[in-house]
Amino acid sequence: MLFKVEMDVNVPIDFDKDKFEELKAAEKARFQELQKAGTWRHIWRVVGQYSNVSIFDVRDNSQLHDIMMSLPLYPFMDVRVTALCRHPSSLHDDDR
Amino acid sequence: MLFKVEMDVNVPIDFDKDKFEELKAAEKARFQELQKAGTWRHIWRVVGQYSNVSIFDVRDNSQLHDIMMSLPLYPFMDVRVTALCRHPSSLHDDDR
Amino acid sequence: MLFKVEMDVNVPIDFDKDKFEELKAAEKARFQELQKAGTWRHIWRVVGQYSNVSIFDVRDNSQLHDIMMSLPLYPFMDVRVTALCRHPSSLHDDDR
Amino acid sequence: MLFKVEMDVNVPIDFDKDKFEELKAAEKARFQELQKAGTWRHIWRVVGQYSNVSIFDVRDNSQLHDIMMSLPLYPFMDVRVTALCRHPSSLHDDDR
Amino acid sequence: MLFKVEMDVNVPIDFDKDKFEELKAAEKARFQELQKAGTWRHIWRVVGQYSNVSIFDVRDNSQLHDIMMSLPLYPFMDVRVTALCRHPSSLHDDDR
Amino acid sequence: MLFKVEMDVNVPIDFDKDKFEELKAAEKARFQELQKAGTWRHIWRVVGQYSNVSIFDVRDNSQLHDIMMSLPLYPFMDVRVTALCRHPSSLHDDDR
Amino acid sequence: MLFKVEMDVNVPIDFDKDKFEELKAAEKARFQELQKAGTWRHIWRVVGQYSNVSIFDVRDNSQLHDIMMSLPLYPFMDVRVTALCRHPSSLHDDDR
Amino acid sequence: MLFKVEMDVNVPIDFDKDKFEELKAAEKARFQELQKAGTWRHIWRVVGQYSNVSIFDVRDNSQLHDIMMSLPLYPFMDVRVTALCRHPSSLHDDDR
Amino acid sequence: MLFKVEMDVNVPIDFDKDKFEELKAAEKARFQELQKAGTWRHIWRVVGQYSNVSIFDVRDNSQLHDIMMSLPLYPFMDVRVTALCRHPSSLHDDDR
Amino acid sequence: MLFKVEMDVNVPIDFDKDKFEELKAAEKARFQELQKAGTWRHIWRVVGQYSNVSIFDVRDNSQLHDIMMSLPLYPFMDVRVTALCRHPSSLHDDDR
Repeated sequence: MLFKVEMDVNVPIDFDKDKFEELKAAEKARFQELQKAGTWRHIWRVVGQYSNVSIFDVRDNSQLHDIMMSLPLYPFMDVRVTALCRHPSSLHDDDR
Repeated sequence: MLFKVEMDVNVPIDFDKDKFEELKAAEKARFQELQKAGTWRHIWRVVGQYSNVSIFDVRDNSQLHDIMMSLPLYPFMDVRVTALCRHPSSLHDDDR
Repeated sequence: MLFKVEMDVNVPIDFDKDKFEELKAAEKARFQELQKAGTWRHIWRVVGQYSNVSIFDVRDNSQLHDIMMSLPLYPFMDVRVTALCRHPSSLHDDDR
Repeated sequence: MLFKVEMDVNVPIDFDKDKFEELKAAEKARFQELQKAGTWRHIWRVVGQYSNVSIFDVRDNSQLHDIMMSLPLYPFMDVRVTALCRHPSSLHDDDR
Repeated sequence: MLFKVEMDVNVPIDFDKDKFEELKAAEKARFQELQKAGTWRHIWRVVGQYSNVSIFDVRDNSQLHDIMMSLPLYPFMDVRVTALCRHPSSLHDDDR
Repeated sequence: MLFKVEMDVNVPIDFDKDKFEELKAAEKARFQELQKAGTWRHIWRVVGQYSNVSIFDVRDNSQLHDIMMSLPLYPFMDVRVTALCRHPSSLHDDDR
Repeated sequence: MLFKVEMDVNVPIDFDKDKFEELKAAEKARFQELQKAGTWRHIWRVVGQYSNVSIFDVRDNSQLHDIMMSLPLYPFMDVRVTALCRHPSSLHDDDR
Repeated sequence: MLFKVEMDVNVPIDFDKDKFEELKAAEKARFQELQKAGTWRHIWRVVGQYSNVSIFDVRDNSQLHDIMMSLPLYPFMDVRVTALCRHPSSLHDDDR
Repeated sequence: MLFKVEMDVNVPIDFDKDKFEELKAAEKARFQELQKAGTWRHIWRVVGQYSNVSIFDVRDNSQLHDIMMSLPLYPFMDVRVTALCRHPSSLHDDDR
Repeated sequence: MLFKVEMDVNVPIDFDKDKFEELKAAEKARFQELQKAGTWRHIWRVVGQYSNVSIFDVRDNSQLHDIMMSLPLYPFMDVRVTALCRHPSSLHDDDR
């Protein structure tokens, strides 16, 4: 089941730089784990922003919620979730 | 080069049903042509809306503009365009 | 799987009254069918508005989309969809 | 008498973690007390957000106000209140 | 039980003048009936707008909804409803 | 001359509790002074918010401005001012 | 007593040109009458818009409301009213 | 003196196609006249929209207003005007 | 050349009182200098807000920008600038 | 390939003045490097704001993203990016 999730990361100007690099490294590791599992199906940077557009393929709503809460950078994020489904005109069976 | 394009279709309540079905059929044909060409890379329906979220892979800004203007349903659409780029954490080289 | 769906109904001032009553009757019949099936789990009127707040319990995103598209009053609606999940503090196992 | 209440919880990045866990535990206890009393009739998590959608069944406006003011996490919340009433099409007498 | 209700009246430029005067007369009659009953407790014009700010004193949410639906000008209105309660600092017992 | 004034009070999470209680007591005293004088004609709490809806009856715009600036909690407030006048349909001569 | 009033004029594309010119002429006559009386104290065009920014000097709120309702183009306007008062730093006694 | 002007063109679905083509031709002629004069200094299409971003170099505010009012497509436009000035860091003396 | 400038002043709750009084005194001196020069042509307080509505009469866009940057309270302000011009219906030649 | 980029700079009231001057000097140097390279094609100040409107001419989306991330003042900026293309009516071949 597909969802578009848009995440904006807001870092306070005076937040500890080393602590934030640690969180970013943890976020990257968690992301790659989910990407390999096929759950975090797509991710793109938004040009000029510290934001991404992502497509998740999850079992149900709860799984998506648990994933979002597990992200190390979640406390810095504004998040927008949009439920998606297959488009009837698509020629690709697996463009889930 | 990647762009997220979000399209909302607004049909006036009293618009001629047959004429609209013709336009929808033409839109579908145009879409599939672009999907086969790899230009309209992804399309998803937004749940509960007459809207889609799409990812385009185009040569440059002008090509995207020309494609949007060529869509039979364009006059009925509200369109939002967002420039994207590859995410540095992604393990997939071609998650363009 | 639960979703909150908020629907605002906008009827043009000059829309044919009889035609609209027919559509309302069809909407009510469709609603009751879905309520009996347990899919349209809750519905409430918003005080002072021609709007409702509803909770749907569906198999997946596609089922919710198909239901919304099947509603006789859909062409008159503004719709907002929000994915929900069980709250960890709830004492009710079935407050799905 | 029914109200939809939507609560977003905003915790400052540097708020004391232990103090917040205490407040969360107190919030949970207060919530369950109100849930058992039938006043806090429904609660759902919003997917991807630290937010809930709730339905309250109260005697009058004042009771709802007093409940909201009594919540341990209230100082961290953005709150939206919407008055609801029974929907005329509903087959359930008690879908208050 | 008190509610603030704000009503903006939007009349299409080409709406039949006589028909609208009839509706306005009916609205005034209905308003005065509710004002005499003590239900429509206050009404004020918003300066420079075809809008009013009103305070209703009703038995419950349903009564307010039924009143709003009974207004002859309702189909022309944008309506915002806000639940109110007595202010703890007020010296007036009946500033309900 | 009547004005609707809506005030939202925003207290920073870490503001000194005792200092704020002092300001609240001063605000209450100032409010009751103005209520007795008939200037702060009505006040209601907004359900679920630290906000009020008030009706002021003042000599002119300047008096209202001076009153607002004199409120002990003014530095914590978001304020919205709307000029009102008597509604032509009202049966009450003094529903100023 | 001073108010800033901002008026945007919206003319439907297909509105009768001659009828609109008549209304504009009537609006101009009414405006100049009020300008001579000192009531419509200032008027400026907003660059690139069919909009004006005006300053009114009126006896009270009711007078301003009656003036706005008397404008021949009022049915085509979006109007925003803001209550003003003399600025304490001003060296001009009559910059009312 | 420089201004950024952003213009969105909105054509009603049922507007006469030939009439609109005439207006577009007239708009293009007027634009090129102003471009040759150096007044309409830059114009760009916004990708995916019937909108442009333009830079005008005018003598004063009035000249810009008169130009905008003279555009054949002005009645179909939403317009946003922003006053600009030379940036102190620029190495180009004439990047007016 | 005329501009409407609207300024909202936001002072953090914990900003040093004496320092702010110094800045206010400097702001007042700068304002009166510009008022005497005829550049800051009008100023009014917005009722109930720490905001003003001002009319500037400047040589060009750059002069307005330089003036705004020179204001001692500028770092505390939200500013909205609107380009104005003489209204064709005005009977006053100098209602610049 | 052209993009409009709008940047608002927000400096916290209590940010270290010397540190900020260093960052501004670094920003200016980086800007002039990009201006000489023809990448940062235009820049203008927005009157009355600490904001600029810029036109970038870049190879692709990624180059623009990398440039924005390299700006010393980026952590203080709100940024809006809009993809542009050549306007068909333009007489200038190089108004890229």
